[in-house]
Amino acid sequence: MSSFAQRHIGTDAAAQRVMLDALGYDSIDALVERAVPASIHVKERATSDIPVAATEAEALAELRELASQNRGARPMIGLGYYDTFTPSVIARNVLENPSWYTAYTPYQPEISQGRLEALINFQTMVTDLTGLATANASMLDESTAVVEGMLVARRASKSSSNIFLVDADALPQTKALLEHRAAALGIDLQYTPYDSVLDVDVFGAFVQYPGATGRVWDPSSVIDAVKAQGGLVVVAADLLALTLLRSPGSLGADVAVGTTQRFGVPLGFGGPHAGYMAVRAGLERQLPGRLVGVSQDAEGHPAYRLSLQTREQHIRREKATSNICTAQVLLAVMAAMYAVYHGPDGLRGIATEVAQKAEALASRLREYGLTLASDSFFDTLRVHVPGRAERVIERARERGYQLHWVDDATVGVSVDETTTAGDLAAVAWAFGLPEGEFAGAGDQGERALPFAVASALAGVPSSLARGDEFLTHPVFNTHRSETAMMRYLKLLADRDYALDRGMIPLGSCTMKLNAATEMAAVSWPEFSRVHPFAPEADVRGYLALIEQLETWLAEVTGYDAVSLQPNAGSQGELAGLMAIRGFHRANGDVDRTVCLIPSSAHGTNAASAVLAGMKVVVVACDEAGNVDLDDLRAKIALHADTLSALMITYPSTHGVYEHDVLEITQAVHDAGGQVYVDGANLNALLGYARFGDLGGDVSHLNLHKTFAIPHGGGGPGVGPVAAKAHLAPYLPSHPFSQRADHAGGFVFDGGAISAAPQGSAGILPISWAYVRMMGAQGLKDATAAAVLSANYIAHRLKDHYPVLYAGEGDLVAHECILDLRPLREATGITVDDVAKRLIDYGFHAPTMSFPVAGTLMVEPTESEDIGEIERFIDAMIAIKAEADAVAAGEWPADDNPLVHAPHTASSVIEGEWAHPYSRSTAVYPVHSLVRSKYWPPVRRIDQAYGDRNLVCACPPIEAFA
Amino acid sequence: MSSFAQRHIGTDAAAQRVMLDALGYDSIDALVERAVPASIHVKERATSDIPVAATEAEALAELRELASQNRGARPMIGLGYYDTFTPSVIARNVLENPSWYTAYTPYQPEISQGRLEALINFQTMVTDLTGLATANASMLDESTAVVEGMLVARRASKSSSNIFLVDADALPQTKALLEHRAAALGIDLQYTPYDSVLDVDVFGAFVQYPGATGRVWDPSSVIDAVKAQGGLVVVAADLLALTLLRSPGSLGADVAVGTTQRFGVPLGFGGPHAGYMAVRAGLERQLPGRLVGVSQDAEGHPAYRLSLQTREQHIRREKATSNICTAQVLLAVMAAMYAVYHGPDGLRGIATEVAQKAEALASRLREYGLTLASDSFFDTLRVHVPGRAERVIERARERGYQLHWVDDATVGVSVDETTTAGDLAAVAWAFGLPEGEFAGAGDQGERALPFAVASALAGVPSSLARGDEFLTHPVFNTHRSETAMMRYLKLLADRDYALDRGMIPLGSCTMKLNAATEMAAVSWPEFSRVHPFAPEADVRGYLALIEQLETWLAEVTGYDAVSLQPNAGSQGELAGLMAIRGFHRANGDVDRTVCLIPSSAHGTNAASAVLAGMKVVVVACDEAGNVDLDDLRAKIALHADTLSALMITYPSTHGVYEHDVLEITQAVHDAGGQVYVDGANLNALLGYARFGDLGGDVSHLNLHKTFAIPHGGGGPGVGPVAAKAHLAPYLPSHPFSQRADHAGGFVFDGGAISAAPQGSAGILPISWAYVRMMGAQGLKDATAAAVLSANYIAHRLKDHYPVLYAGEGDLVAHECILDLRPLREATGITVDDVAKRLIDYGFHAPTMSFPVAGTLMVEPTESEDIGEIERFIDAMIAIKAEADAVAAGEWPADDNPLVHAPHTASSVIEGEWAHPYSRSTAVYPVHSLVRSKYWPPVRRIDQAYGDRNLVCACPPIEAFA
Repeated sequence: MSSFAQRHIGTDAAAQRVMLDALGYDSIDALVERAVPASIHVKERATSDIPVAATEAEALAELRELASQNRGARPMIGLGYYDTFTPSVIARNVLENPSWYTAYTPYQPEISQGRLEALINFQTMVTDLTGLATANASMLDESTAVVEGMLVARRASKSSSNIFLVDADALPQTKALLEHRAAALGIDLQYTPYDSVLDVDVFGAFVQYPGATGRVWDPSSVIDAVKAQGGLVVVAADLLALTLLRSPGSLGADVAVGTTQRFGVPLGFGGPHAGYMAVRAGLERQLPGRLVGVSQDAEGHPAYRLSLQTREQHIRREKATSNICTAQVLLAVMAAMYAVYHGPDGLRGIATEVAQKAEALASRLREYGLTLASDSFFDTLRVHVPGRAERVIERARERGYQLHWVDDATVGVSVDETTTAGDLAAVAWAFGLPEGEFAGAGDQGERALPFAVASALAGVPSSLARGDEFLTHPVFNTHRSETAMMRYLKLLADRDYALDRGMIPLGSCTMKLNAATEMAAVSWPEFSRVHPFAPEADVRGYLALIEQLETWLAEVTGYDAVSLQPNAGSQGELAGLMAIRGFHRANGDVDRTVCLIPSSAHGTNAASAVLAGMKVVVVACDEAGNVDLDDLRAKIALHADTLSALMITYPSTHGVYEHDVLEITQAVHDAGGQVYVDGANLNALLGYARFGDLGGDVSHLNLHKTFAIPHGGGGPGVGPVAAKAHLAPYLPSHPFSQRADHAGGFVFDGGAISAAPQGSAGILPISWAYVRMMGAQGLKDATAAAVLSANYIAHRLKDHYPVLYAGEGDLVAHECILDLRPLREATGITVDDVAKRLIDYGFHAPTMSFPVAGTLMVEPTESEDIGEIERFIDAMIAIKAEADAVAAGEWPADDNPLVHAPHTASSVIEGEWAHPYSRSTAVYPVHSLVRSKYWPPVRRIDQAYGDRNLVCACPPIEAFA
Repeated sequence: MSSFAQRHIGTDAAAQRVMLDALGYDSIDALVERAVPASIHVKERATSDIPVAATEAEALAELRELASQNRGARPMIGLGYYDTFTPSVIARNVLENPSWYTAYTPYQPEISQGRLEALINFQTMVTDLTGLATANASMLDESTAVVEGMLVARRASKSSSNIFLVDADALPQTKALLEHRAAALGIDLQYTPYDSVLDVDVFGAFVQYPGATGRVWDPSSVIDAVKAQGGLVVVAADLLALTLLRSPGSLGADVAVGTTQRFGVPLGFGGPHAGYMAVRAGLERQLPGRLVGVSQDAEGHPAYRLSLQTREQHIRREKATSNICTAQVLLAVMAAMYAVYHGPDGLRGIATEVAQKAEALASRLREYGLTLASDSFFDTLRVHVPGRAERVIERARERGYQLHWVDDATVGVSVDETTTAGDLAAVAWAFGLPEGEFAGAGDQGERALPFAVASALAGVPSSLARGDEFLTHPVFNTHRSETAMMRYLKLLADRDYALDRGMIPLGSCTMKLNAATEMAAVSWPEFSRVHPFAPEADVRGYLALIEQLETWLAEVTGYDAVSLQPNAGSQGELAGLMAIRGFHRANGDVDRTVCLIPSSAHGTNAASAVLAGMKVVVVACDEAGNVDLDDLRAKIALHADTLSALMITYPSTHGVYEHDVLEITQAVHDAGGQVYVDGANLNALLGYARFGDLGGDVSHLNLHKTFAIPHGGGGPGVGPVAAKAHLAPYLPSHPFSQRADHAGGFVFDGGAISAAPQGSAGILPISWAYVRMMGAQGLKDATAAAVLSANYIAHRLKDHYPVLYAGEGDLVAHECILDLRPLREATGITVDDVAKRLIDYGFHAPTMSFPVAGTLMVEPTESEDIGEIERFIDAMIAIKAEADAVAAGEWPADDNPLVHAPHTASSVIEGEWAHPYSRSTAVYPVHSLVRSKYWPPVRRIDQAYGDRNLVCACPPIEAFA
């Protein structure tokens, strides 16, 4: 029987033999050991914590055993996380459908129209509900979105104040993040209950709406006051509550943030979920993250694409104002589709039921003589039970419910769309009410509430009742039957190119197989319906899985401690730099704030350093893309006393194993600095070398690159931070963490980096299963296969496109950069033309113009088989020949299949054909495409037009007529 | 919040209002009650056993509770059913993918090329492994396949003998089916252990290979002997064993049958699984069921289609030799893909491991002094434990294993690909061996076997070792990585049109929504990994679900008892007729064998009657399609003493509620006959009338039509048989049934109709969930919505295409027949042309030329929304206009978009365009298709060519070059 590794790795022994023969190596090990500098080869270890590879069936059985250790309690803790019904049609056709979850970030918009439409639905949903002008395509979570909101206020406010006012009724995890992040940036946080007139000068203020205690109040006068003195107001708002309450926009807010989790996205022990951010008109260009907009294609038809990409950190580098790169696309799609499926009336109905259930519980509790902290609420009650809080919580636990312990005298309880009358009865019983208070509704007892409530939001000032319409666009009012919804999801998926169609040979993002077995446990209720603040006794399966994964990741990277809290690579970077900051400060080195970053680094590195309160100093690279050792030494000398860290990527962003890495890290250590190794390229190293052995003190990893978590069309990601023991105390902590210590016995106390203590725990079973089924040998074999395929492509293409960089033995690592500048010089054909022409050939383009403008970076990964690799090579060679034909004058420079690519079906069918190349040449440049062709739904998209005419909500359907 | 019924029913109140206004009715109830004759309106019932509709979440919670009542024991019972690993990539991308499971039978081959390719892979797999010339596209299960094999032998043998020889070592359930079915046909079964020279004259013989006891022996001399005297030999062979053993074909068998369950298809408590049948050259035209073959399309490209359809029972009617219509397509696809994924080496590896495990267990048992019934075996041992059998089984149960109790002295145990060394150790312990016998392999103990076995099949004559190659076609040797497999499955799905793309407006097959929530439980291991002969104590959840479903189905149909055993409509029909036969015989009426069937009946009716040993007498219909009462009375009078039954369909196959149904059934009853009501059209009746109230004594239902089980691309189906109390004793029984009585307290003793006692139990959760979430009111609402939509379509189209039949108030039932004969008369455009042109418009064609040649029968079902219905109406009107243009001479009769339909993309792109209509007209007759177009992969397929040149295995890939 085949091992999982044989299923995961695309090339079998015979295919590898063909490639090795072409490259002139006897064995795959010989090739990789030649490519990886001998000085860093990993030493053989006598023992390993990574068990021998499990079969798929064994891994599933182990996961089921771990799942069974999570107690299936019903969470009524609230605090920004609510149980929700994921409509089965969305679970099956989005969350469990590779056409959605294996897609990449929509940087190639022509082949991403389906998910771009889903995201513009998301943006429209957020702008409608928040009453603001523009929303982005999601944030990582609510608490990080609040931090980003504070940064927007800082940038946009003309106030010279350094004070940011924070609602005392903010979520505890949001306070923790604000404190941690503000400290690094020198922002002065001041808490206020907003119960008196504002008497300090501030650059911004934050309001939680409704509050963490459940309180619903009217913040408009506070908002007015802050704005009057030049500050901006950030409101975190619950989207479900907003179907009944006045929108932040109508209350005057500048920025609204929050989570869309309760719109059908499983709790997943904390994530992944899509946070959101919306801003008033005038702040669009301050938005962090990704923004989908409407532009037009070469034929003038409306088409979606990412807007304002010039804001992104990978372009702005040290000028970046945010390090957010990943969105939470898959989850944003789910939340948007929840709104599409329910529509405005459905959402209002759900919210009304939630409010009625809260009111019903409140009434009973009050009848029984209990008092509530607030009599105005949406879904959350704070109940006064002096001295009895623990007992109430314990009684609830007996019945299988999780409530929120606030203090000895106070218990919090939140209801949600899944709450039944039976649940309310059990909770009431936990508070000491007589048994059976909510029963008596016969067969329907579990569902129908045996009471009527006069108003949806009893006790809330009528001035706060929402009066305006929302979600009026047809997309939210059409797909009401499951059949219609299923077809809409299929229609969108059909427009996109994902891994289920073919190779996505990106450099910089490792697009390997996301195996179905790895994905299975994500859907199991024992993993998906778990609150991030659930008590330790209820989540033992999750904690065991997390501890194992921490142990395995530490071992393969050569580190001592790992935190899985960061829910994106960017957050892992930030956490790593914050750990370095914490370490220096603990040593009294408060002035060590200089961060050296090579000029070849990914822009996020610089952005993260800035957000960690560091000063970025750029180190030069040589023409081979390697760090210039002389310049490094000079920069170190120049900043000897203030050197905090060096950030390097290994293998380099140029796809090369730098020979001198040990000298580089040694030089930094000698000067008292710490070394941050960016883990983006770990797929070129696993099993052959370890970051810790290179001299790294801390790294982030990308579970969504190296460890098989799918890209989800542009998120989720998971960016664990791994560190040597001396930095472990400064790794992320969390006020609600269930775990005192982590694998290896380390206690982390670095401050919160994500809203949830275990980050996006819901998808960690994917990486767990990947390591469990590959085993140490399988991980090493995968590295070797990836490096072999990259070198094979470089070898086969080098006569057609120069390979820009190579290392030892003229070998590349797991990716290669093809230089298209000579082609442009000779033919006028650009990188864009080649990338778009690849669509006509049935491929996703490689990474364009990163890290070097005018190039394509190609990473085949280990999962592609030789058939697909050859198909890609053949396509690239054929495209080169087409470009040569342009150069030779066979086709005019402005009328050839390259500059007009991609070609839609209608472009070659409708009307007259006036091009010097044939319709067949346009769309069937290779004959096999006749039998299986991916048809892009639009022609090449005009990027500039979209930025000039910014439209970031659903266009009217007439636009498509 | 929306109820499930609101999600299931496509038309909301506003849409229904539009339709009702067009039809001139005030309310939907008024319309349906006008359409359904008043005499049969259902009476209001005070109580109902059907609970109030559950929400989707509630239904899932109840299903989880039922699932938890199935004890997760590991089955080692064997007898044709083995646990298996369904590769996750196949589970996710086939079994759980609506593109596969919502497809219809591939009667429109141009839009079914994906699943037709999958089925030809299946056929190739079967012919390769069995060593025979031609295999069909699956059978219902192994035991019914053996019966069909016996019938093939009966037809093909020139022997005048009436004797069919049966292997004494046949599976018990196969013996039960053979006995039941042979009795009805007057075939004389004789059992033999094949241990002596054949000395009777027989028309055929059956061999189980390996035997039910596990014995592997060489039957070639028996086969030679039977053939020498003119008989045919049917061999039931285990496909996995055939990877190591000589094939039936090489041993001389004429027919091979069996199951493909263990090729990755979950046990599912008995089904659904794909049975198989293969025959030697010369018997192709004797094959029952469906056969996929290769033909060519209008451009001469190879294309798949169903071959030899003229054999099918719906065409041959009373001349039919089999009543099999449904195949098990979805399961056949899974089994074929298991072979595609593992390939010949992988399958051999799995088989070798299985054999090694069996041999290892045998060795240990023998070392311990136990004796085996046979020392030659593949995967099954019969262990001699005099007086201890019960104790051994009990000890195994303690450890969580199910063994097979043969008799007080004998225990059977079967291993499979999921069996671990730990399992073997536990089983050995159950037999009394010391603890820990197979342990001691450290971490890998669960997987690696701590022993080496000299030969794969120790003790089997080397003459039986397989020497020839199999599965050499590239399709079985290419898709070895999960990535490649995922893409192959996507590629095939992309070629097909299923409900996830749009409407499939068939009459006769109700293509309604198959909701994701309904499908969920099918994948849960508590339902999927259950052996059909598991002890009652281990399957209480299943039995409870089955009893509830029986109760609900009895209530909605007006019957007293329901059996869910028949795993297709045809088998339900047969079971119903066998019940009538049993009833008459019990009353001493052995001569009551005449079955009256209206000329409008579906051909399967007649075929089933023949197979139940009845003589078919056809009753005339009037020009409106109704039973001719005078002719009925005349026929009754003519056959007064021999009248067994009348079979009618209600509403009629013409889609009309016959007014006189009560007179019809009364006349039959008055003459001592029984009334069989065909349940195919139940979707027009639920909630408004009941078969039992119409005078029906027995009916079959189609859970895959009325009760939401998906069609799976041409199976599975479930065809419960429901009857009045007097027939209940004659409903299906089974030697391994876990249940003494059924809902209502009835004990069934009619004989086995399916291989598994609960039939295709694995998909019953779908129908259970459908009824549970719809509730009685929802079922009624669905009927009303379906009838309304059918009448709306009839109304809107009647000026363009005459509606052939109508009943009360000029209304149709749930479907309408559009008469295209006048169109052909006027324009030359045929039904075929219209059906294929609908593909260009993005539709699956309605049912063609059934029940009336030259017509289209349209059934929208309740699940289509008004948008899709209008789109269909518009397309039909536009096609009429195109036909008129042909008639008007605007386009030549032999060169217009209708006769050339469907148009592939390449047909309008490649080469010159020489047609009088434009490329756009060909493929974008409606502008909205430009944005979302389903592209058929082939042009119109030449049916006759395929039948003349019968190729039923994978064509060489060069054929597609």
